[in-house]
Amino acid sequence: MISSDYSTLHLKKLGIDTYTEPVIYLRRDSYICRSEGWTAEARVKVSHNGNSLIATLNTVETDLLRRNEASLSTYAWNFLKAKEGDEIKISHPKALDSLSFIRSKVFENRLTAEQMNLIIKDIVEGNLSDIHIAMFLTALAGKGLNQEETLNLTSAMINSGRILSWPADLVVDKHCVGGLPGNRTTLILVPIVAAFGLMIPKTSSRAITSPAGTADTMEVFAPVNLDLATMKRVVKHENACIAWGGSISLSPADDLLIRVERSMNLDSEGQMVASILSKKISAGSNHLVIDIPIGPTAKIRTLEQAKKLKSTLEAVSKAFSLKLTTIFSDGFQPIGRGIGPALEARDVLAVLKNEKNAPQDLMDHALDLAGAVIEFSPDVKQGTGKTIAKEILISGKAYKKFVAICEMQGGMFEIPIAKYRHTITAKVAGTITAVNNRNLAQLAKLAGAPIFKTSGVDFLVKLGMRVSKGQPLFTIHANAQGELDYAFSFLELGHKVVTIEEEI
Amino acid sequence: MISSDYSTLHLKKLGIDTYTEPVIYLRRDSYICRSEGWTAEARVKVSHNGNSLIATLNTVETDLLRRNEASLSTYAWNFLKAKEGDEIKISHPKALDSLSFIRSKVFENRLTAEQMNLIIKDIVEGNLSDIHIAMFLTALAGKGLNQEETLNLTSAMINSGRILSWPADLVVDKHCVGGLPGNRTTLILVPIVAAFGLMIPKTSSRAITSPAGTADTMEVFAPVNLDLATMKRVVKHENACIAWGGSISLSPADDLLIRVERSMNLDSEGQMVASILSKKISAGSNHLVIDIPIGPTAKIRTLEQAKKLKSTLEAVSKAFSLKLTTIFSDGFQPIGRGIGPALEARDVLAVLKNEKNAPQDLMDHALDLAGAVIEFSPDVKQGTGKTIAKEILISGKAYKKFVAICEMQGGMFEIPIAKYRHTITAKVAGTITAVNNRNLAQLAKLAGAPIFKTSGVDFLVKLGMRVSKGQPLFTIHANAQGELDYAFSFLELGHKVVTIEEEI
Repeated sequence: MISSDYSTLHLKKLGIDTYTEPVIYLRRDSYICRSEGWTAEARVKVSHNGNSLIATLNTVETDLLRRNEASLSTYAWNFLKAKEGDEIKISHPKALDSLSFIRSKVFENRLTAEQMNLIIKDIVEGNLSDIHIAMFLTALAGKGLNQEETLNLTSAMINSGRILSWPADLVVDKHCVGGLPGNRTTLILVPIVAAFGLMIPKTSSRAITSPAGTADTMEVFAPVNLDLATMKRVVKHENACIAWGGSISLSPADDLLIRVERSMNLDSEGQMVASILSKKISAGSNHLVIDIPIGPTAKIRTLEQAKKLKSTLEAVSKAFSLKLTTIFSDGFQPIGRGIGPALEARDVLAVLKNEKNAPQDLMDHALDLAGAVIEFSPDVKQGTGKTIAKEILISGKAYKKFVAICEMQGGMFEIPIAKYRHTITAKVAGTITAVNNRNLAQLAKLAGAPIFKTSGVDFLVKLGMRVSKGQPLFTIHANAQGELDYAFSFLELGHKVVTIEEEI
Repeated sequence: MISSDYSTLHLKKLGIDTYTEPVIYLRRDSYICRSEGWTAEARVKVSHNGNSLIATLNTVETDLLRRNEASLSTYAWNFLKAKEGDEIKISHPKALDSLSFIRSKVFENRLTAEQMNLIIKDIVEGNLSDIHIAMFLTALAGKGLNQEETLNLTSAMINSGRILSWPADLVVDKHCVGGLPGNRTTLILVPIVAAFGLMIPKTSSRAITSPAGTADTMEVFAPVNLDLATMKRVVKHENACIAWGGSISLSPADDLLIRVERSMNLDSEGQMVASILSKKISAGSNHLVIDIPIGPTAKIRTLEQAKKLKSTLEAVSKAFSLKLTTIFSDGFQPIGRGIGPALEARDVLAVLKNEKNAPQDLMDHALDLAGAVIEFSPDVKQGTGKTIAKEILISGKAYKKFVAICEMQGGMFEIPIAKYRHTITAKVAGTITAVNNRNLAQLAKLAGAPIFKTSGVDFLVKLGMRVSKGQPLFTIHANAQGELDYAFSFLELGHKVVTIEEEI
């Protein structure tokens, strides 16, 4: 037997967060590293109380650790449910079949359902490194997946986590591919659809790279970290909820893939389809409206690309008996005025309360989508959904339903407003000819969004609008003078948000 | 201006080695992380005294660091020549063009020379992460590189580092694709060729995943960490040296690519060709013999694959005016008896000293390759090289030259022998029908090779050999009783090294 002196170590918490890459920290001069010949970046199997994962080795050459101690990155620590001082066993990992399948995909072979399942299982169980996942995602993007493989990937991802079920025949959902800044239609659509009488147990994401995700904006009104029991109770009472999807384990493989993909910035149609549909099917939906904004700064840039995506979405949905409506929309301009959780929440509330100055583009787009969802109802004639949605909004029923949902989730909070604000005005008179959405989002993030709810940008103009000299263009909202300065310095460094063509 | 309070931090050494992935450690609740919205795995530009690189963020949630402190992984620390307490500035990195080119390669576009240069430059300057490099390597393997791209990659890799030049028209070199265990022909070939009168300034690698690299074995005899001045002095005196290539900066991009590739285990012909030729051309060689062992456990498995590789090697070599001879050899069995630095050194010395029990296969293969190198000489008739090489070996001139080289490098040391040994004998009489080279290498590594020079395995049998019950099969050599037990336990766990077919 391998002596426990060498391979058994005691855990010490260093509290280093490497995101979802499992890392083990060992002294470089520990007996196990020396005898195994392990150097930094070796892959090491870590076992603890019957659980195990494969971690990447980082070696330590200082007194952070003793020779009989080891530490784990936050993800690995939580994955193994470790406690300070616990014993772990470390060993050489076995060769992984899933790695051979990934290599086979790189060399243009098709993957079977079983192979896809094993790859996804090894990703979720922490056996493949970021480098392996990057290799997998590149192979998917390069060679592409055919429809059968996309189906297999979707199915493997659904099976990697929990699958919810709801006490209704018709469970509806909505998704937007590549959101535009300020595009918070979900918070308007959900109460309309629920007030109409359909069940819509909505799970949303937090911001990954944007100034606010739907879950971040909803959190301005009410808690979104709902456990499954709470989620079910809210849906039972109100036909709907708006929860953060991360708090229940739906398609965990998708989260792990997206995390690596984020730094690759590679689009793969097959993986996008599997990502969207696995999340929705896991969430127990059987009717889904997908909004595909098309525009130069949106995820989908051409009508041709949108049509191809639609066709794959439809084929895969059909195999899972998911009824699908796809809507192509204008993805050229930001929607609404606020950018950042509290400012977007303010826009949502203005629409729900039928306020005069509510952003019309946000209202109109939300009604389009809500109408499409309502048309899933067998009692509704095609083409009449939007009218029904509008009636529900105008009548105040949607607002009432929204308040009820928020209260059931533990809200309904007042929308806070930032203490520190700075308005940028037009230096010349003229016409707005360009808006740099990327810099706009960056500015909102520098001001503190989404971490600080009140931070962000209130954007006061639209493309094509004429402005006079000194007219306000946008206001930066921040939590502290320091943050305001920090965001402002971004503009001072020459980053443009709005282009004004002067009148001559 | 962005206030220096937020983005200027003081360095604290944590001494964490992440191999060549640059990592920056910041407190999760530091002002810069909060205001930038940075979480673990963000890419962060780190500037220090006019140098900079892009590092991956790992956040720390304990008192390892204070809020105004940062730490760097060993690679980043050395890259930036940082010292404890130094100030660094951190900021958002700009979008990298090289990343767009890599993505373009994923989608089957051809890369121009300029694009390839920029990718390699960003890899060497520490601007691309492991995930980006994995994406690049996958694209090379999947889509493949055509000859022009292979040429461009080779050229970019040569330009990424130093290029040596030597005071001779004919500078020869030798390379083996996918070494077999124990295959230490270089240490025999170099003194033969130098004694013949050709200049052979040899740079070799240390073990990456094997129990010994040529540099590890040479180090048993003499120092191999030569600086360039020493290397030049040795070559001036003896026409040759055997140095570790890592101590002079030749094709540093290659080292960085290989490091990521190691954990992907993906073969890409174009990248292999660029890797081999960039190293040799940087080292100043203009005549090269390449040994391609073909066999089921070798890197090249079929004659067809070998021929294709040969053709690409020849085309690219021609463009760089490098004269090339390719030799296909039998890659089925290990060569020599010893596995591990000191045991391989013993085999090498036995051949050089014409000892009776010297491994004949090692001698013969070394002579084949030395003969091919000697035939680069304009005075030598084709087909007579091996005979000349043999004469030099038998005459003792090669041994004398080897001693002279070692002494010039600061040797010639006695070969040490392990204190702890354990011999495994045949449990039954019969014929050796299989040798598991992978398990054999693993056993040598568990015994401590290449970290401990004397550790390894002395392999006493050959395929097809008849053995009687109780006959020694192999001896494990180790530095300590504990290591011997550790290696032995690997066999006890059921890992086979030798298969004996019993006689019935």
